[in-house]
Amino acid sequence: MTSTATSTAINVGLMGLGVVGTGVAATLLRENSPISDVAGRPVNLKKVLVRDLSRSRDIDLPSGFLTADPEDILSDPDIHIVVEVMGGTDPAKGYLKRALSAGKHVVTANKEVMAKSGPELLALARENGVNLLFEASVGGGIPIVGCLMNELAANEIRSIRSIINGTTNYILTRMANQGTNFQVALSEAQGLGYAEADPTNDIEGIDAGYKLTILASLAYRRRFKPEDVYLEGISKLEPQDFRYARELGYAIKSLAISSLDNGAVQLRVHPVMVPNEHMLAKVDGVYNAVEVDGSLCGQVLFHGMGAGREPTTSAVVGDVIEAARKMGGHPAGPHQGAAQNETSISVRPMGNLQTRYYIRLDVADRPGVLAQIAKALGDGQISIAEVLQKDTQPETESAELVITTHPAKEASVQMALEVIAGLPEVRRVSNTLRIEE
Amino acid sequence: MTSTATSTAINVGLMGLGVVGTGVAATLLRENSPISDVAGRPVNLKKVLVRDLSRSRDIDLPSGFLTADPEDILSDPDIHIVVEVMGGTDPAKGYLKRALSAGKHVVTANKEVMAKSGPELLALARENGVNLLFEASVGGGIPIVGCLMNELAANEIRSIRSIINGTTNYILTRMANQGTNFQVALSEAQGLGYAEADPTNDIEGIDAGYKLTILASLAYRRRFKPEDVYLEGISKLEPQDFRYARELGYAIKSLAISSLDNGAVQLRVHPVMVPNEHMLAKVDGVYNAVEVDGSLCGQVLFHGMGAGREPTTSAVVGDVIEAARKMGGHPAGPHQGAAQNETSISVRPMGNLQTRYYIRLDVADRPGVLAQIAKALGDGQISIAEVLQKDTQPETESAELVITTHPAKEASVQMALEVIAGLPEVRRVSNTLRIEE
Repeated sequence: MTSTATSTAINVGLMGLGVVGTGVAATLLRENSPISDVAGRPVNLKKVLVRDLSRSRDIDLPSGFLTADPEDILSDPDIHIVVEVMGGTDPAKGYLKRALSAGKHVVTANKEVMAKSGPELLALARENGVNLLFEASVGGGIPIVGCLMNELAANEIRSIRSIINGTTNYILTRMANQGTNFQVALSEAQGLGYAEADPTNDIEGIDAGYKLTILASLAYRRRFKPEDVYLEGISKLEPQDFRYARELGYAIKSLAISSLDNGAVQLRVHPVMVPNEHMLAKVDGVYNAVEVDGSLCGQVLFHGMGAGREPTTSAVVGDVIEAARKMGGHPAGPHQGAAQNETSISVRPMGNLQTRYYIRLDVADRPGVLAQIAKALGDGQISIAEVLQKDTQPETESAELVITTHPAKEASVQMALEVIAGLPEVRRVSNTLRIEE
Repeated sequence: MTSTATSTAINVGLMGLGVVGTGVAATLLRENSPISDVAGRPVNLKKVLVRDLSRSRDIDLPSGFLTADPEDILSDPDIHIVVEVMGGTDPAKGYLKRALSAGKHVVTANKEVMAKSGPELLALARENGVNLLFEASVGGGIPIVGCLMNELAANEIRSIRSIINGTTNYILTRMANQGTNFQVALSEAQGLGYAEADPTNDIEGIDAGYKLTILASLAYRRRFKPEDVYLEGISKLEPQDFRYARELGYAIKSLAISSLDNGAVQLRVHPVMVPNEHMLAKVDGVYNAVEVDGSLCGQVLFHGMGAGREPTTSAVVGDVIEAARKMGGHPAGPHQGAAQNETSISVRPMGNLQTRYYIRLDVADRPGVLAQIAKALGDGQISIAEVLQKDTQPETESAELVITTHPAKEASVQMALEVIAGLPEVRRVSNTLRIEE
């Protein structure tokens, strides 16, 4: 257990030396770094865990720093803070548990572990009187985790609407600005290193779902699980959706949304039409943004780089400084989110969502089609706001029909869409998007 | 001195019951408020200092809460946290000093006192082992003070560019959107309660200068004084400046800017032309925004309500929660900004500024005028980027000439403008604005 006096040096063990680990190591090793001054005591990097000692690296580390044996960090009583930037659940989660149990403070960038096991790990931190900090798990250089824990703590959070996956936002920005299709934009993102070879986690909303789980657990002081989040990816979007969105005055963004209503919270990640004037509509490329609507602060928007070596290092080293400042002080306070005195806020099923919808249909260009579709919607109590008929093609007798609705219930809309898809005149329900006002 | 155990209740003494004080009292008194749960111990409002006991108020306080005697708060050993929302330097500063000396934690919304005497008060807090927190002094509901102290602490702050006076931004937004002149927009702001009867503090940049002094002291860990900030108000702006700005692709905003260059920081508040694409150009009405450019995090933008009862209450009560959490812990750490281990960053004089300029001249519509003006600029090593000749009026033989320059030195531009103002063909140097890229 760390009972270091105020002026004693703090030793850091770093687990992982990928892109972010390299940034963290470089920052902690920099000469004349102000970090020790800011933290109020010397902060030293002592050991770095890597998988392969022989690999060549972007950074020159003093000899003896590298190790392939996690015990050199986990069993060293002189290491006070463990920084985990390996990613993935295994073996990272096991290392985090061991570090906390050994009385070490832990700083992690691991959104997957924090989303799946945050409450368990935070409880372990409390038991051991240490801090578990995870600013880097959401939003890179945007200080949203700390703000929800601390600066905005006086608020009841009515909603969080966020763009927290830069890969997805890059692809959507390209599709909107260049009119490219999804596959081309994805390949481009892969070429630039913004998307991985297997892009599933990003484009299907899984990554954003992890991050939303973490934010919601902090905002509502209750443990949520990744399975509580409704996920819908962006691969179904087509160039014409962006054209119609522009015509209707909207941008298409993949938002991660949590909204509180009558003691229940709805958690969802899906593409959304956002009015052009809204700040979130203006967030382009790999940028991230988080809009928090609090009972007192109103809407506060945070905008910045959500990923990458330096922004993530900003978050990790900020947490190292916080852990160093707190040593000898009050660790593991109630502000570590979730677990202690949980609220009784429940998860609202997706079918209960009440919002406006955009529906794009490929229909036979024959009289009476619109009447049948309107009837199916009317039967579900869904009222039409606007209809655009587009791309009528006499040779195939087909037309594209775009309908926007007034606020309606998700479950009713899904049922009506099934009816509509079964109509003989409807060739395809091409896409459905929720409209956020 | 407060040596309260973890579960003991925390008592709050509130000084001031104006707009913000009423919000703070209402929030602390609310039934089923989650604040005690979030703070980890009961937080109770115990006394409220007002000037006039007999005045009718927007809030029902339990009997015995109100007092007109500051001793009822300052000399009560059972009050652990003093919240000051009176404003002004006198008697507020004296009360803050007495509260800190008595070992009470202090939360203040007082930008004037913090800008003028922050380092002195923070030193006093440290001596007495208590916290002095001031999130509400800048940016209302935007958590910029805490973020500079904590979440962004790993960064060297390269620059802060901010819209931190809502009154000014409201007036500029009206002038830009409605083409109204300054006086009309100001009267409107006064009618809506956004501007005071004497608007000097807002429109001359004094208020923004206080806030910038506070932010810069945190960002650069050095004590700055309000006098270190160059101030220029918005009253010289005319409708045609907004027309030309639009034509050139810019918005006009009053920015509070601190920028670090070669170990020296420049602090300034003045109207600026901002490219339309920039996020700061899109901040309208009474909204505030702060863009921090950090060595690691890159550009992070915070956007939200910078004033008003609820947003400021969010900041004040957030600080009360933080103080309550820290009690028994490590108070007055190095993260309280300024004073301890000051950096040696100096203030760069305004004449050293290097930026682009917009110059609007009222000139005689005669041949050779532009050549003379161009010569005056050229003599000062100032190179012209663009020239617009406008509003030529044959009857008065006058014309409006708008010139933008490439980056040039402020001192040279001011000297050249003196020469230009002395030319017989120049009737008036109507306005000069700096252009921010």
